[in-house]
Amino acid sequence: MSRTRVHNLAISLDGFAAGEPQSLEAPFGHAGERLHEWMFKTRFWGEGGAEGVDDAFAVRHEVGIGAEIMGANKFGPPGWQDDPDWKGWWGPNPPFHSPTFVLTHRPRAAIEMEGGTTFHFLDAAPAEALAVAKEAADGKDVRLGGGAMIVREFVAAGLVDHMHLVQVPIVLGRGSRVWDGLEALEDTYDIEAVSTPSGVTHLTFMRKGTEG
Amino acid sequence: MSRTRVHNLAISLDGFAAGEPQSLEAPFGHAGERLHEWMFKTRFWGEGGAEGVDDAFAVRHEVGIGAEIMGANKFGPPGWQDDPDWKGWWGPNPPFHSPTFVLTHRPRAAIEMEGGTTFHFLDAAPAEALAVAKEAADGKDVRLGGGAMIVREFVAAGLVDHMHLVQVPIVLGRGSRVWDGLEALEDTYDIEAVSTPSGVTHLTFMRKGTEG
Repeated sequence: MSRTRVHNLAISLDGFAAGEPQSLEAPFGHAGERLHEWMFKTRFWGEGGAEGVDDAFAVRHEVGIGAEIMGANKFGPPGWQDDPDWKGWWGPNPPFHSPTFVLTHRPRAAIEMEGGTTFHFLDAAPAEALAVAKEAADGKDVRLGGGAMIVREFVAAGLVDHMHLVQVPIVLGRGSRVWDGLEALEDTYDIEAVSTPSGVTHLTFMRKGTEG
Repeated sequence: MSRTRVHNLAISLDGFAAGEPQSLEAPFGHAGERLHEWMFKTRFWGEGGAEGVDDAFAVRHEVGIGAEIMGANKFGPPGWQDDPDWKGWWGPNPPFHSPTFVLTHRPRAAIEMEGGTTFHFLDAAPAEALAVAKEAADGKDVRLGGGAMIVREFVAAGLVDHMHLVQVPIVLGRGSRVWDGLEALEDTYDIEAVSTPSGVTHLTFMRKGTEG
C-alpha cells in the first residue's frame, strides 16, 4: 500500500515553516537557516554528523520513497516561473533521486537532472497530483516535500498518511504557517512528541487504523 | 527580586489556550477540558495523582507566589460584569490564596473569599497593574494567571520573567492564541522543551541574564 508522507518539515513554536519575505537570497525569509540547524548537525546531512535522536528521524526522509510532490514555493523564489533556466535550488544533482512533481499554475517541460531526479511540472489539484505521483512511485511511497501551504492543503484533503514536523524553539511571528485551516487532527492521527537534546521537539502524526 | 511568572498555561499544538465560543457551560469553548487532562492526573491536582514530570512542573504554580493577576476572560464567562453576584468559577475557597487582581474595564468593589484569596478589580495597563500586584505580593513573585490575551500583552510589554507553557497534542484551529503579536522570544528568553509520557511537551521561557 503506497502511502503519502511528510518528513523533516521544520516549524517554529508558532507554526511557521518559513519566514518572510522569501527571495533568492533568503529562501526562508527572516527565519534564515534557524529552522534547519538541528538537521545540519546530523549524519543524515553529512559525514561526521551526530547519530542521535534527530538523525533517527531525519533519515526516514529517504526510506521507501518513490516520488516527491512539492509546491511551487519550494522549487524556487517568487518569480522563478519567469526564468526559463531555473532548475531549482539544489544544483545538478538534487537530493530527491526520484520523479519529483512541482505543482505550479505555469507548468513547463520536464527537466532531467543527475542522480535520478526528474522535475515534472503539474497544474493539478492535490488528489489528481497524488494519483500521478503514485503511478510514478511504482508501489513505493510518495513524499510530500512542502512548503507549509501544500502540506496543509493535502492534510485538509485527507491525503496524508504520515507527517513528521520538527518544532524549533524560536518564535517567527510571521510567514507561512502549517496550521492554518486545520483542526482536530487528533481525530484522524495518533500524535507523538519527543524533545531531544538539541532543543527541538519531533512531532509525528500517524493516521489511525493504518500503518501511517 | 520579585519576578513575574506564568505557570501551567496549556496550549494546543497550534497555540490556542482556549477554544470558542467561551460560555458559562463551556469555559474553554470547543476545547472542553482537553487542554488540562494532563494536570488532572497529577498529585498537584489531587491526592492519588501521579508525581512524574508533569507534576514537577505543575507544583511550581504555588511556589513563592505572593499575588496573581488575571484577565477578565479568566474570571468569568462573557458578560460576568453584568452579574453583581459573580465571584469567579472557583467556589468559596479559590485556589489562589493571595491577593488576586482581575483586569477589567468595569471594576467593582473587592471580594474577600476564604483561604486568603481576595479579588481586586483593576482597570489598568499591564505595567501599572503589575506595580500594584508587586506591592501586594510583598517581595514574593507575581503570577500571571492568563488567559492567552493577557499573557501575550505582558510578554510583549517585556514584563514576564518566566513562562511555562504546556503543549497538548491537539489542533484546535480557532480560539485565543498565545503567540499572536509575539516574535523573536528566543532573543529575550532561554527556551527549553521536554516531552513527557503523558504526551504533552513542557516549554519553559527563562529571561536571559536573570534568574527567570
